[in-house]
Amino acid sequence: MLDVVVIGAGMAGMTACLYALRNGKKVLVLEKESVGGQIAKSPKVENYPTVKEISGSELSDQLFEQIIALGAEFELEDVVGITKENNIFSIKTNYNAYQAKSVVVATGAKPRMLNLANEENFVGHGIYYCAICDGPFFAGEEVTLIGDANSALQYALMLSSYCKKVKMFTLFDKFFGEQALQDKVRNTTNIEIVHEVCAIELKGTDKLESIVFKKKDGTAFEHKTSAVFVAIGQIPDNQIYSNLVDLDKNGYIVSDERCLTKTAGLFVAGDCRTKEIRQVATAIGDGAVAGTNACKYINSLGD
Amino acid sequence: MLDVVVIGAGMAGMTACLYALRNGKKVLVLEKESVGGQIAKSPKVENYPTVKEISGSELSDQLFEQIIALGAEFELEDVVGITKENNIFSIKTNYNAYQAKSVVVATGAKPRMLNLANEENFVGHGIYYCAICDGPFFAGEEVTLIGDANSALQYALMLSSYCKKVKMFTLFDKFFGEQALQDKVRNTTNIEIVHEVCAIELKGTDKLESIVFKKKDGTAFEHKTSAVFVAIGQIPDNQIYSNLVDLDKNGYIVSDERCLTKTAGLFVAGDCRTKEIRQVATAIGDGAVAGTNACKYINSLGD
Repeated sequence: MLDVVVIGAGMAGMTACLYALRNGKKVLVLEKESVGGQIAKSPKVENYPTVKEISGSELSDQLFEQIIALGAEFELEDVVGITKENNIFSIKTNYNAYQAKSVVVATGAKPRMLNLANEENFVGHGIYYCAICDGPFFAGEEVTLIGDANSALQYALMLSSYCKKVKMFTLFDKFFGEQALQDKVRNTTNIEIVHEVCAIELKGTDKLESIVFKKKDGTAFEHKTSAVFVAIGQIPDNQIYSNLVDLDKNGYIVSDERCLTKTAGLFVAGDCRTKEIRQVATAIGDGAVAGTNACKYINSLGD
Repeated sequence: MLDVVVIGAGMAGMTACLYALRNGKKVLVLEKESVGGQIAKSPKVENYPTVKEISGSELSDQLFEQIIALGAEFELEDVVGITKENNIFSIKTNYNAYQAKSVVVATGAKPRMLNLANEENFVGHGIYYCAICDGPFFAGEEVTLIGDANSALQYALMLSSYCKKVKMFTLFDKFFGEQALQDKVRNTTNIEIVHEVCAIELKGTDKLESIVFKKKDGTAFEHKTSAVFVAIGQIPDNQIYSNLVDLDKNGYIVSDERCLTKTAGLFVAGDCRTKEIRQVATAIGDGAVAGTNACKYINSLGD
C-alpha cells in the first residue's frame, strides 16, 4: 500500500512528491509522457525565482533528481482510471494497478496549438504559448500575437508595454474578451489588429522566419516575424477523474488554493486545476500545498 | 513615478518584483530589516523545489541578485504609512516618500517566540518554528514540541509519523485545536503529552542541549533535547495598511489566491496574507500572481 500516488511529473506533481517524501510518506509518481511537463519544452527560463537563466528541461531534471534522491518511486505509465473504496484509492494504469491512501492529480494542461506542420519544431524558437514567460525575451522588438479572448488581450497589453509593436491576428471580426480590455487594446497605439485571418503555414529553418495567413477572400499573405505568441486556449485532460472530482466548463478540476477536491484524500495541483495564473512558481506553490495536505489527511486517518 | 513599490524583500516580495521587472515595469523594493525574510534564518533548506540543499540566506541572496541584475531598485527603509488618491499610491517611509501606480505588500510574518534568553542564538540550532520545513532533519529521533492549538497538533502528528518520539508540552491543562486532531494526537503512541508547564530557560553552548520547564506547583525540571519545535502562533505586522485593506482576526491581510486586496492596485503576497500553508514555495507562487496582477492592473489604467 502506497501513501501517495502523484499523477503527473511536472513541476507541481514533483513538488507535491517532495513535500510528501520529506514527511516520511511512501510516494509513487506516474507520468505518461516525459518528466517536466510544459516547462521542459522551454529552452530558456528566466523567471524561476533564484535562478537567473536555465533551460526548462534542466530545471525539471533538477527537481526529478531531488525527489529520486529522497526515495521517490517513478513509473512511466498512463493512468486510465481511479476509484475509491473504504478510504483506499485504486489507480489503474495501462500496465499496472496501485493502491494508495491519497492521490494528487497534477496532469497539467497543454496549450492549444495552431496545428500547423512543423509547429512542434518551432516551439521555443519562434512559437511561444506564454507571453508572461517568454515575452520579455523580445523587449524592444516587434512581435506577433494570435488570439481573440481575455488571455490574448492581456498578452497584447503586456507585450505592448515593452515591445516596439504587437501585431495581433484574430480568426473572426471581433474580440471575445472583456469590453474594458478590448477598448484598451484598440486604444493602444503600438498594437495593430488584423481581423478575419487564419494561420496556414509556418516558414523557417532552425528558427521561425515568417507565418502565412489566409484572408476571408481566400487570398494568402506572408508576415515576416521571429516571435509568434499563440493564445488560443489551453487543453486540460481530466475527464477520467470526473467520477471523483468536479470539472469546470473548460475541463479544469475545481479547487481553491487549498488544492482540495470534492473527494477526501484526492488533491489537485498545478495547471490542471481551476486557477487564474499558470506559472512554474504557482505550480510549485500548489505542489507544496497538495503534498502537505495529503500528509495531513493520511495522518488523520484511523489506523 | 514608479510603476510598482514592493514592501518587503522576502521571497514573496522579491518574486513579485521579478515578475513586474520582466514585464517592463519600474520597481522599487523597500525592506526595513534585511533581505530574505524568515527563510534567511534557516541554516539548511531542503524543500525548495530544484535545490537539494542550500542555506536560506544563500537562497534569498540568489533571488536578490536576480532582481538587481534585472534593474530592481532597492532601499533599506521602513514604511510608515500609505495612501491612495487619484489612482496614485503615496508611500511614506522613515526617510522618504514615493509615488507608485501599484503596491505589493509582502511584509511576511514572524513566528511567535518563547521570549527566553539566548533563543535567537539557538534558532536553526535546536529551536525551530516550522515542522514542515525542519522536522525531516530529525527523522528517527526524539523531538520536543511546544504548543496547544491546531498548528501544534498538526505538527505533532506529522513529526510522530517519522520521528521516534514527540514530547509535547502545553501551558494549560488542555488543547485548543479541532477535537478530531486532539483525539488523534492523544491516541498516537509515540506522542507524549505534558500539560501545564511553562518554558523558562534554554541551555547549551553552540547548540541547544536542554530546556527547563516550570510546573504549576512552582518546581522546575530540565528536559534534555536537541530539537524544540515552537508552534505558538505567528505575528503579522499589517496594522499600518488597515486604511486600505481588510485584516482578519489574526492580523493577516484578507485575500484569496488572486492576491487582490479591497483596494484596486494594492496586492498582497506571501506569509502576510490570509492563507493555509506558509512555505517558500507558496510565497513565490503568491509573488508571481501579485507581480503579474500588478502589471495587468497598470496596463489597464487610462493614460
